[in-house]
Amino acid sequence: MATATVVKGLEGVVAANSGICWIDGYAGVLAYRGIDIHELAENSSFEETTCLLWYGKLPGRSALQEFSSKLAESRQLPSEIYSLLRSFPKSATPMEVLRTAVSALSFYDPAENAVDHDSNVRKAFALTAQLPMLVAAFDRIRKGRDIVQPDPSLSHAANFLWMLHGEKPIPAATRTFDIALILHADHELNASTFAARVIAGTLADMHSAITGAIGALKGPLHGGANEAVMKMLFEIAHQGGDPVEYVRSLLAQKKKVFGFGHRVYRTEDPRATHLRKMSEQLSRDSGNMKWFEMSRRIEEFVRNEKKLNANVDFYSASTYTTLGIDLDLFTPIFAISRIAGWAAHVIEQLDDNRLIRPRAEYTGPEYPVKYVPIEKR
Amino acid sequence: MATATVVKGLEGVVAANSGICWIDGYAGVLAYRGIDIHELAENSSFEETTCLLWYGKLPGRSALQEFSSKLAESRQLPSEIYSLLRSFPKSATPMEVLRTAVSALSFYDPAENAVDHDSNVRKAFALTAQLPMLVAAFDRIRKGRDIVQPDPSLSHAANFLWMLHGEKPIPAATRTFDIALILHADHELNASTFAARVIAGTLADMHSAITGAIGALKGPLHGGANEAVMKMLFEIAHQGGDPVEYVRSLLAQKKKVFGFGHRVYRTEDPRATHLRKMSEQLSRDSGNMKWFEMSRRIEEFVRNEKKLNANVDFYSASTYTTLGIDLDLFTPIFAISRIAGWAAHVIEQLDDNRLIRPRAEYTGPEYPVKYVPIEKR
Repeated sequence: MATATVVKGLEGVVAANSGICWIDGYAGVLAYRGIDIHELAENSSFEETTCLLWYGKLPGRSALQEFSSKLAESRQLPSEIYSLLRSFPKSATPMEVLRTAVSALSFYDPAENAVDHDSNVRKAFALTAQLPMLVAAFDRIRKGRDIVQPDPSLSHAANFLWMLHGEKPIPAATRTFDIALILHADHELNASTFAARVIAGTLADMHSAITGAIGALKGPLHGGANEAVMKMLFEIAHQGGDPVEYVRSLLAQKKKVFGFGHRVYRTEDPRATHLRKMSEQLSRDSGNMKWFEMSRRIEEFVRNEKKLNANVDFYSASTYTTLGIDLDLFTPIFAISRIAGWAAHVIEQLDDNRLIRPRAEYTGPEYPVKYVPIEKR
Repeated sequence: MATATVVKGLEGVVAANSGICWIDGYAGVLAYRGIDIHELAENSSFEETTCLLWYGKLPGRSALQEFSSKLAESRQLPSEIYSLLRSFPKSATPMEVLRTAVSALSFYDPAENAVDHDSNVRKAFALTAQLPMLVAAFDRIRKGRDIVQPDPSLSHAANFLWMLHGEKPIPAATRTFDIALILHADHELNASTFAARVIAGTLADMHSAITGAIGALKGPLHGGANEAVMKMLFEIAHQGGDPVEYVRSLLAQKKKVFGFGHRVYRTEDPRATHLRKMSEQLSRDSGNMKWFEMSRRIEEFVRNEKKLNANVDFYSASTYTTLGIDLDLFTPIFAISRIAGWAAHVIEQLDDNRLIRPRAEYTGPEYPVKYVPIEKR
């Protein structure tokens, strides 16, 4: 029977042991397997970071080569999945499509129900390679364009931009996107990862866990936040007024300004530091400083006014827009990166599983309430 | 930063306030909105119980009439969903199909992203009516039979059996199935319901939450258990040996005997009491006592040997088999019932939302681990 006091949202409650991600919210530290996110952002690639997340340490040269090749070779979708994507309404949101298509992919998995370590790793490769394909393919389909086949000679980051735009990306775009993928790859027991672990904890399969995680990421309090940031920037640009006045008015109406504050960080989100820098650099390179400057002014105002720091979502918005990525693909791109962490957590959960089943503090009518027959109600 | 000790599987941790379900694991009490499950099983219907779960009290006669009509009128699937079901491999498991089809249903929802109270209730009606249709339709399709259209004159329980078998069920079958639906309708923060609340907590939509819940229910430690029970009974019958010897050998090999024990109950699962009774009655009526008698002997042996009680899954196995329901539909049927509870919990979560985001106890390499360049690894 439940005896403890309820901690709403499980804030600060420790729900699992995990060797994947270290966050010190007070010092503003994020580390994967002990390695600081700043070092990874500056030196690593999505492939290497994923390898680190899944296997616990940085790979040697030949191991990284093997890992990257295996990931590139996993860029395959059953033909039925292309037909499925074509059958969906073009107006469907990319996150609904991604959730549904990932769920459907389990039909074609050779061992859908298997939850042993090796099967989980195999599925992790497949899904990490397939998520970008699903996002790019549906975007091409809904725009009436031909689907672009993956290029095994390209890195994970470059290949996605290639499949999305149908043009080989410039190195600066690839590097920016690769860093964004590194920064978003894991974040300990965030809501979508926690959802994945709760689902996997029943010994449900990897596809079930990732489908659930995509559903959680879809929520505006989680993956949807950078989309909300960009909508605000577009709205400000559309109205033509002053960004600071716009945000001042939001705050006066007690409305949420997306892209600020974080459940865990009490100082700057270390990912925001990189995204700010990337957004500025990309804006300079592309000769369009508009979104960056607007963001910078809003950030300063909110920090002074509300003592809130920009989080990972705030600068990813202008970064993705400058990369020519549509608003409603921001959250799917988050998923393309976070699949690395989701998979690492599902593998870890199932390597030493325990059903995740908390209790509720009952607040309803006191037991026993009598069942009154309908004629006496 | 996390400071508390990790409670594996969140056992006994209170994760939310909830006025829906009261469980006293020591006394073996289960109550919806304060009303004992025994009173509901004896007197209520799935429609009335769902109304109780969603609105907090038993409806008057006209309110129940209105609720039931609205649920019956919601028995509609977009034609695209029938095409989708037909496009799936016939070998797909019904749980994969259900998870994928529920995810796809959001494409056709008039306000997919809306998470306000009224939208959630509207979606709850739709999904509660649609889940049985999806399960029955896919089962008919995979067997090469014509899809049976819903009959609005039938109750929820009777209509499902009608759509599944294409024959009007006898009253005893309808009543048995109705009671099974009542017994499975809610169970506080079980893993699938908790997954639904974690997903909804990001302000993700009802379809995302229910899709995730279906994924969690799919796991053998959750919804898959009664299927595992029936597989054991079939295996025993196939081998032709003594049931007790079979189970004794399982225990000697330290293998799990499905259908026994429960995270929360320390005495008999109150739902097992009804399912045992129903299974016995149905077996007598149908003149086939085989599965019931086998179950009874196994139950006695495990209780004496391991001091473990039969749980809800143990007798639902023989009950469903006697109702002529295929093994791999047991878990989908669980979903058809539990959708009432899932929806009640999502509505409750979103009526007073807080992002569910716990912490992990970090057990990996101590921070900071240096990033070693690849040429020096």
